[in-house]
This record gives sequence, C-alpha cells and structure tokens, in this order.
Amino acid sequence: MKFYDVSMPIHESMPVYNDNADKKPHIMIERDFVDGQGVRETRLSINLHTGTHVDAPLHMIYKGATTTEFKPEDFIFRARVIDLSFVEDSITAEILKNIDIQSGDFLLFKTRNSLTDGFEKNFVFIEKSAAEYLACKKVKGIGIDSLGIERSQIGHPSHVALLQSGCLILEGLRLKGVPAGEYVLLAAPIKIRDVEAAPVRAILVEPSWLADFLKGEFER
Amino acid sequence: MKFYDVSMPIHESMPVYNDNADKKPHIMIERDFVDGQGVRETRLSINLHTGTHVDAPLHMIYKGATTTEFKPEDFIFRARVIDLSFVEDSITAEILKNIDIQSGDFLLFKTRNSLTDGFEKNFVFIEKSAAEYLACKKVKGIGIDSLGIERSQIGHPSHVALLQSGCLILEGLRLKGVPAGEYVLLAAPIKIRDVEAAPVRAILVEPSWLADFLKGEFER
Repeated sequence: MKFYDVSMPIHESMPVYNDNADKKPHIMIERDFVDGQGVRETRLSINLHTGTHVDAPLHMIYKGATTTEFKPEDFIFRARVIDLSFVEDSITAEILKNIDIQSGDFLLFKTRNSLTDGFEKNFVFIEKSAAEYLACKKVKGIGIDSLGIERSQIGHPSHVALLQSGCLILEGLRLKGVPAGEYVLLAAPIKIRDVEAAPVRAILVEPSWLADFLKGEFER
Repeated sequence: MKFYDVSMPIHESMPVYNDNADKKPHIMIERDFVDGQGVRETRLSINLHTGTHVDAPLHMIYKGATTTEFKPEDFIFRARVIDLSFVEDSITAEILKNIDIQSGDFLLFKTRNSLTDGFEKNFVFIEKSAAEYLACKKVKGIGIDSLGIERSQIGHPSHVALLQSGCLILEGLRLKGVPAGEYVLLAAPIKIRDVEAAPVRAILVEPSWLADFLKGEFER
C-alpha cells in the first residue's frame, strides 16, 4: 500500500461524538432525475466536529484564531504514525516520554479507537499531562483516531494547551491497517471562512511513492 | 510562490451559481462561549455544487457512479494551468486544438472568470465540442475557474461527455495570479458517501518545492 485514506466516511448514520443526534449530518437531495432526465444535486448539513476535521483555536479559546488563518503550508507534513494500541485509558506524559519527540513533529496516535466502528464512550484520549508535554515540545500537529482528544476533562485543558501552543489538532482519523512509520500527510481542510474547525480528507502517502511520482511525471 | 490555494472561501455571501438563494451556504453557531467560558461549535449547510468541488458522474448521469468510487490515487496529479484569458465566450474544440493535449493529462483552464469575484452570468464555459474533444483525448481531469463547466446547453452535453469518459471535473477554482505551467495538484474531496459531488480544498504546489520537501524531511 502506498496510500492510506485515513478519513471517516460521512453519511447519516455515521458515528458522532457521544452519539448526540444533533451531531449527525443531514444529506438532502435538492434536485433529482425524473424518468431518467435531469440532474442530481445534494445539500450537506454537518457539524464541523463530525467526521475527520481540523480544529482551530477558536474551538476552545475565546476570541481565538479561526480557520481563516490556515495557510497552504499547513496542509502538507512529514507525519509519524505511532502505535499506542496498548494504551487502555488515556495517553499520558509518562507514555509519551518513551517516544523520541522533536520540535516540529506531526504525530498521529494509533490507538484501540481505530478498531471500533461505532462511537466508543470510553475512547482513548490525550490526557492533560500529555497535551502539556506535547505543547512544551512544540510539536506542529497531532492527530488521533477518535472524535475528540479529550474525555470529560473540565475546562478542556488538553485542547487549550495544544491550541495555545499553535499545535494543529486533527480528529476523527481512521488508522486501522496503517503501519507505524513516517508518511507524507496531506490534510487540506475545506476553506470555510471564520470558523473554529473544518472537515478534511486526510491522506497518508509513502514518501517513496511521492518521490517516484515526481520523477515519473516531471522529469521526462 | 511555491503554493497556490486555488479554492473559493466558503461564507454566507459568497458567489453561487446563478446567484440562486437556495445555493447559498448557511453557517450556524450551535454552541458558543458565554462570558468567555465554553466552546464554539458551528454547523455548515452547503449545496455540494457551491464553492470549489469535484463532480461525480451521478451529477448528470442517471444511476452514474458516486463520490464513493473516488480513490486516493484520484487526489494527486500532475496538472497544467493553461492560460485561456483571451477567450471571450466559450472554450471550443477549435481553441483546444492549438494546445498539446495528451491522454492522462489534467488541465486547468484559467479564463477571465478568475478576474471576477462575484457570479458572472456570462462566464466562460466549456462548449460541447471542446468537451467531446477532451473526452476523445482521454484526459484524466479538467478544472475551471467558474462554478459550472457549461452555460445554458440543453441536456448538459459537456458534463455528460466528460463524465461518461471518466474525466474528473473540478469546478469553482480561483486561478488569478497563478502562472501557466505545470504543478502538482492536490485535490482530495471530503469523504461524503454516495453523493454526486464533494467540496474540496484544491492546492497547486510547484514540483520543485515538493521534491525539496521530500529531500529535506525524509533523507536526513
């Protein structure tokens, strides 16, 4: 495999945070074929935290920056998938201290969440100590295979620590079947102005595939 | 410039096809900060043909293929921006015959549409003869800087010819300021299941930037 599509499919019965009905997307056909003639046009209504998405600071920081501040340089990264399948409850600073983490890293945490298709109430989350550790290390971004990076932490300290440090947060990844290792992460969220999050189709590409693509397509 | 974000910003007063009110997106704040405490959560409701998007065959072909059939290989291309600023009314086969077009090409047509910020009723479109010519040449995809590839052609023959040939159609690009030439096109539409189109954040990257990125990030 050279490509991994690590995004959740969006449909009306997809899993959403806490299984809240108000987080479900609605997909409405607005124009359709009649007797085989015509066109199909659909409208999507979606909470911006449903499915695979990127959070901007305004999600959790009052008057924080919005999606308008995202730059195209924020859409292509070297990213590392880290296997944390052994974690039972939450990712803590103690666990992360066993991993070589450098400033500027983009880390994708693969946990037991990727094995569940529905919404798992006790999903593995990023505990406050881990978020503060990552913020301190100045990582560029983190991604996780759950619809939230925290679970019942009052004041959402994990979001706040990471968003304040300028770390991008990618939620709702599907990492089942993706081996640990380094990839090119393509994650360009749709260009909604002035909001606190945006849906994204996140793709992991093996760097050797991309190098071959460039060679094959442009060096002829 | 090494990156060009060629996508339209999505907001409630953005230009939409024919200025139809029912094509405008709605952006609704569902949760918000009170006295500086809390979180922001927004819902987006959008017609899938508003803003920068990719069409699937089902848009114009009865029982045609949907977005579910898109593969990650359909999201990274060598693409060529072709300057057609001189075209006044429509792109015809005659105009395209002056351009070297090969099977498998992805062509992005830069027209006077990119100079207009609002919806221009007489936008430059891809006339039937041009669509049939492109289908015959077996191009992989085409993109244009208008919200539609055709204008008042009964039966939508340009869409039908291209979609039947398996050509991807990228609409709503913003190509102002992008020099003609070859780029890596990143265009991964959000993963909505079983629909006829999907919003996309389309980015053009200079191949030399991407080659340097791979070298700098992975060959250390």
